Amino acid sequence: MLKDFEKSKPEEKDALNREIKELRARLIGQQQLIREKKLPVLVLIEGWAAAGKGSLIKEMISEIDPRFYNVVSPAVVPESEMRYPFLYPYAAAIPENGKLIFLDSGWMESVVRKKLRLEISGEEYSRRVRAVKEFERQLRDGGYLLLKIFLHIDEEEQFERLEALSGDADTEWRVTPDDLWQHREYKQFLKAYDDFMEETEDPVSWHVLDGHRRKVAIRDAMKLLVRKIDKALEKDRYVGEPFEEKFPVLKMPKLSEVDLSPAISDEEYKTELKRLQKRLSELHNIIYRKKIPVILCYEGWDAAGKGGNIRRVAYPLDPRGFDVHPIASPLPHELNRQYLWRFWTRLPRTGHIAIFDRTWYGRVMVERLEGFCSEKDWKRAYNEINEFERQLTDWGAVLLKFWIHIDPETQLARFTERQNTPEKQWKITEEDWRNREKWLQYEEAVDEMLQKTSTENAPWFIIESNDKHYARIKALRIIVDALEKACNDQFRHMFG
Amino acid sequence: MLKDFEKSKPEEKDALNREIKELRARLIGQQQLIREKKLPVLVLIEGWAAAGKGSLIKEMISEIDPRFYNVVSPAVVPESEMRYPFLYPYAAAIPENGKLIFLDSGWMESVVRKKLRLEISGEEYSRRVRAVKEFERQLRDGGYLLLKIFLHIDEEEQFERLEALSGDADTEWRVTPDDLWQHREYKQFLKAYDDFMEETEDPVSWHVLDGHRRKVAIRDAMKLLVRKIDKALEKDRYVGEPFEEKFPVLKMPKLSEVDLSPAISDEEYKTELKRLQKRLSELHNIIYRKKIPVILCYEGWDAAGKGGNIRRVAYPLDPRGFDVHPIASPLPHELNRQYLWRFWTRLPRTGHIAIFDRTWYGRVMVERLEGFCSEKDWKRAYNEINEFERQLTDWGAVLLKFWIHIDPETQLARFTERQNTPEKQWKITEEDWRNREKWLQYEEAVDEMLQKTSTENAPWFIIESNDKHYARIKALRIIVDALEKACNDQFRHMFG
Repeated sequence: MLKDFEKSKPEEKDALNREIKELRARLIGQQQLIREKKLPVLVLIEGWAAAGKGSLIKEMISEIDPRFYNVVSPAVVPESEMRYPFLYPYAAAIPENGKLIFLDSGWMESVVRKKLRLEISGEEYSRRVRAVKEFERQLRDGGYLLLKIFLHIDEEEQFERLEALSGDADTEWRVTPDDLWQHREYKQFLKAYDDFMEETEDPVSWHVLDGHRRKVAIRDAMKLLVRKIDKALEKDRYVGEPFEEKFPVLKMPKLSEVDLSPAISDEEYKTELKRLQKRLSELHNIIYRKKIPVILCYEGWDAAGKGGNIRRVAYPLDPRGFDVHPIASPLPHELNRQYLWRFWTRLPRTGHIAIFDRTWYGRVMVERLEGFCSEKDWKRAYNEINEFERQLTDWGAVLLKFWIHIDPETQLARFTERQNTPEKQWKITEEDWRNREKWLQYEEAVDEMLQKTSTENAPWFIIESNDKHYARIKALRIIVDALEKACNDQFRHMFG
Repeated sequence: MLKDFEKSKPEEKDALNREIKELRARLIGQQQLIREKKLPVLVLIEGWAAAGKGSLIKEMISEIDPRFYNVVSPAVVPESEMRYPFLYPYAAAIPENGKLIFLDSGWMESVVRKKLRLEISGEEYSRRVRAVKEFERQLRDGGYLLLKIFLHIDEEEQFERLEALSGDADTEWRVTPDDLWQHREYKQFLKAYDDFMEETEDPVSWHVLDGHRRKVAIRDAMKLLVRKIDKALEKDRYVGEPFEEKFPVLKMPKLSEVDLSPAISDEEYKTELKRLQKRLSELHNIIYRKKIPVILCYEGWDAAGKGGNIRRVAYPLDPRGFDVHPIASPLPHELNRQYLWRFWTRLPRTGHIAIFDRTWYGRVMVERLEGFCSEKDWKRAYNEINEFERQLTDWGAVLLKFWIHIDPETQLARFTERQNTPEKQWKITEEDWRNREKWLQYEEAVDEMLQKTSTENAPWFIIESNDKHYARIKALRIIVDALEKACNDQFRHMFG
């Protein structure tokens, strides 16, 4: 893409200015429609140091109402200091419906720079390219308009610009050691950029713009943006098609086949609880030192005992090193973004544990059954979630998912007990009774979920919870085993 | 407080365990009421290294439903790396209504440690003590239950614990160089802690607990917590009384006295706009390098021209170095916290500019007039806001506040034009017309606000905006002047 790049011809200045002015006026007109149609727009501006990315963004936004856009320029953090998955800063920055985000360099720069610095292996590089493609497709399929621009200048031009900046006391601080390194390694970068763009041309394509002539670049960038927005606005919001991805999945039983009789004696419960909690506490120390992130997901029937189970897991943990995230209905600013956003922003730092009390699987359960998203949306979600979870385990996370399981009779008994115990009444709502009526529909949805999303890297465990003590011990054992394994894997902390 | 501390007597173990068990049960019972009465609870646990803060918190939370609490342990960041005011991490962590937060050391440790490290001057220390008292009072007056605990151990005990921790391969990493430094300087710390506690005993008092006997400390901490919660729950939510604070204020004219005729020729507008924007762009560079945070506040009548004014200020700025924050009605999770929380969390980093399109002054305008808060609340707010703003300028921020002013006739003309111009119709709503009917009430509120909150450090400027061009130039001039001054003040970047 860059190799066969041809510099643009000089153009008449007045005509250019006129064109830019017209495009600005059109963008102002579009602004209102973007709001009304709730279109989220993400403009990614990548390119060479000193190519003029900042100034290009400045011109693009100059007439947009500042209430509708944000400019984000995430720092490229050295791999050793990354406490989150590499896509985290970008996933956290995606715009709300009806708003624009301009990213002043993003995931491309981060991945390419770390590759050339040898901070990540070739294998890890490939995984990141895959994750980028997944991330971009998920945004597109979620109705986001994503525009990817690369601002190009040749080696000579970069030399002149860096020299001019360095020569002026007021601007020399703008030239960073990284910029100079990039210039010294111009040819290596050229190839690496080119490779990355070719590898990520699909599903969202790149636009290389000529950075040699400032006004031409501005005109071309605005033209692209205005055209893409027009195209997005003339139709209904895009909803991606579901597709079959062959994620290798573990064989899971149907819920109806699960034997719920397992129970445990009081004595065994006490001994095992103590033993497992002690070990978990020790493992938490090791996890912290080895910087292994841990994500525990709890789903299950109402009154199945999620809360009590979580409490037994949390008790031995150092309170500074874990968070419990109760997941309720999304708040307005969460609902206004791609559905995984509120989970991206709740990920644990490396060495920490995040316990999710309900999870992103709401997409294929309550959102599916209550019609909070379209059929395409929830059908697509199995694959999107598998991708998301693979990104998390590629990052190095231990990810375990529990389905806390009871039968309808046990639920009824517990509901009734809650109803009749004053201190427990708050735990039972009308909604719980309504959900109970849909048991069979939920069971179908859960079965499908378990079949399609139990992967080697992020497996589901069905926890028989008619006997709550049994359920707690079983969950604790699974957690302790998984953490033992992770702590003994000496290569794990290297994250690829 | 620590000097005359006496170690507790040994107590019978079974009795202690029984008491703790009972207290836990009471806390479980309170949990539901905390939720129902929407009481926010902040438990601050300060104390010596190795005193057992983490383990104390663990025991206090062990039976609480994990959905209702969070444990936060903000790192003490070296002053040179602080990109936010020193209270920022704590202000950002305050709980929502109905939830509990446990802070594993907080503002006390941060302020004392930096004082002993000589990272902050004596003068700055005093300012921070004042800010802490203001912060705590504001929380209390906002209905927060704030419990402040100091966990004490003597020098000998600390020695033994640090030695035991260091001697075990599994725990030695827990002993940090800072802990060892604290132990070496035990006597200095003792005095500094003591001083700090005495200085901040009012308005929210301290509770020193004996860390020598683990179970005693747990029992005493839980007793305190349960008793305080009981007390808070038996009455209606506390609403602090307003009080006169003698902040020196600048003399401001009444709005009705403001001459709105000032205007500017097209030619002067163009020349001045260009000149000022060029200078602002240069100043933005210097601000960035000198790490000066800048906060620009816009308030004004509907259709006064805030948006256009902000756009002219934003245009010359490097988009990577500023953010515009449009402030609309608070979202549920914002409404559920002290009203300044959503502004604390939007502060700029040092070297960055935050432009607020409407601000915290909503408290004494729309919230006052629409009854969204009580009379005590908005009357108290003048003082609280003056304190908040002094904390920001003490931090080193340039803080400018603009009232964009027009007369009712001009507003009517602009409303009508918006109504009749298809591309502008979204800018005008029923609410705008309703607000317009309350012009006189708003004028009274604005007058009072201008009188009470225009301080030397954070002044108000009335910007005559019947002529929008004039208004833009005036605002730009004020900003440029203030930034010139800040950039020339060579001591400014030292933050005290």
